[in-house]
Formats: sequence, structure tokens, C-alpha cells
Amino acid sequence: MDEPRFLLRLFFGRDQRFGPGKADLLRGIAEEGSISAAGKRMGMSYKRAWGLVEAMNADFARPLVESTRGGPKGGGARLTDEGAAVLADYTRLAAKVAETGAPEIAAIAARLKP
Amino acid sequence: MDEPRFLLRLFFGRDQRFGPGKADLLRGIAEEGSISAAGKRMGMSYKRAWGLVEAMNADFARPLVESTRGGPKGGGARLTDEGAAVLADYTRLAAKVAETGAPEIAAIAARLKP
Repeated sequence: MDEPRFLLRLFFGRDQRFGPGKADLLRGIAEEGSISAAGKRMGMSYKRAWGLVEAMNADFARPLVESTRGGPKGGGARLTDEGAAVLADYTRLAAKVAETGAPEIAAIAARLKP
Repeated sequence: MDEPRFLLRLFFGRDQRFGPGKADLLRGIAEEGSISAAGKRMGMSYKRAWGLVEAMNADFARPLVESTRGGPKGGGARLTDEGAAVLADYTRLAAKVAETGAPEIAAIAARLKP
């Protein structure tokens, strides 16, 4: 059987959410230097990727992503220090879930039909 | 700000999934002794609740829920030992996420707009 996977989505007070889609997009932007390239890598339209970036920049006190030229045709994008910090926190959180939760995840997996 | 919340959904090899909806439904069945009462408590149609029970019973090697009379008009339902064990594992997993992940969840929350 393939390795079990999990999705962890966080919900905060003012309808703010952060989960694997936004985290993957931030990671893609950091690696690709572009919102459209990051979205493409995830099979996501530019519009959807841009919408997620706008949502993140609206939810957080300081922007997580900075467009170096901006606009839909624009050039590059990069994570701000704030964006890198949020991504690092979420990545660490997911690693903790995988590590500390491994016994329970394995116990559930062991009860499934093979 | 309200307490942050999270959703944790598990994905296994053969398109099998287990997450908060199914866990809440199992908990409701354990407490209410009925699939329809458990679903109603979650604002879920009987059809939807029954569909989730059927999916769980199909995904796991042994059924998680036993209808004591069965059928849509049927009477009671209860968790099997297997169902109670899966619910306990998932509940423990969620508690671990809340506990070990608290610093990262708080760090992300602290960066949001207040």
C-alpha cells in the first residue's frame, strides 16, 4: 500500500484559513520565483494561484508574497520574510504530525482493507 | 480571537480516506445510538450520513458501524469494537496535533491580522 498521507488545514478566528494548498503555493513561489510558474506546477490556473496569494496577503498582517513587477503579466514574485516564516511554521507543523502521529496513522491504516 | 481550529484528513493507498466528518459521525453514533440522530446533530441528511457509514464499512476490513435493525427506517446503530478503535486512534491523533503543534499554530495565528 502507498504511504498514508494527510492534509492539515488551519482555521482562525476571522474566517482566515491556511492549509496545504497555500503552503504548496508558497513553496512553489519560493522555488520558481513566479506565481504563475508555481501555480502551473500544481496544476492550478494563474487566476486561482493569484487568488490564493491575494487571500494570504489579505489575511496576514504583512504580505507573504511580493510581486517584483506585479500584475497578471508581471514578472517575478518572491516570499517576504513573513511568508518564509509562515511556510516554515506550517512545514514544521506538518512534520510533527507525520512524526508524532505515525503510530495512530499506522494503526488506522492497519485496519483498512488491504 | 477565537481559538484556532484544524482539520486533519488522512488519505490511504486505495482511495480510502478518514477525516473529521467521519470521526464526528462515529462519535455521534456512539453517543446517539442512531445514524440519523448522529447525522442530524451534524446538520447532515440521513442519506449523507448513511453514505459515510457505507463508505467506512467498505474501506475497512471489518465494519465500523453495525445497524441493529438496519434499513433507512431502521432503529439503532452502534460502533463495533473496530469502529471504537478507529475513532479512538483518530481522536488521539487529533489531540497530539493540538498539543505538539500548538507552538506552530500559535506562531501562524500571531502573524494574522488581528
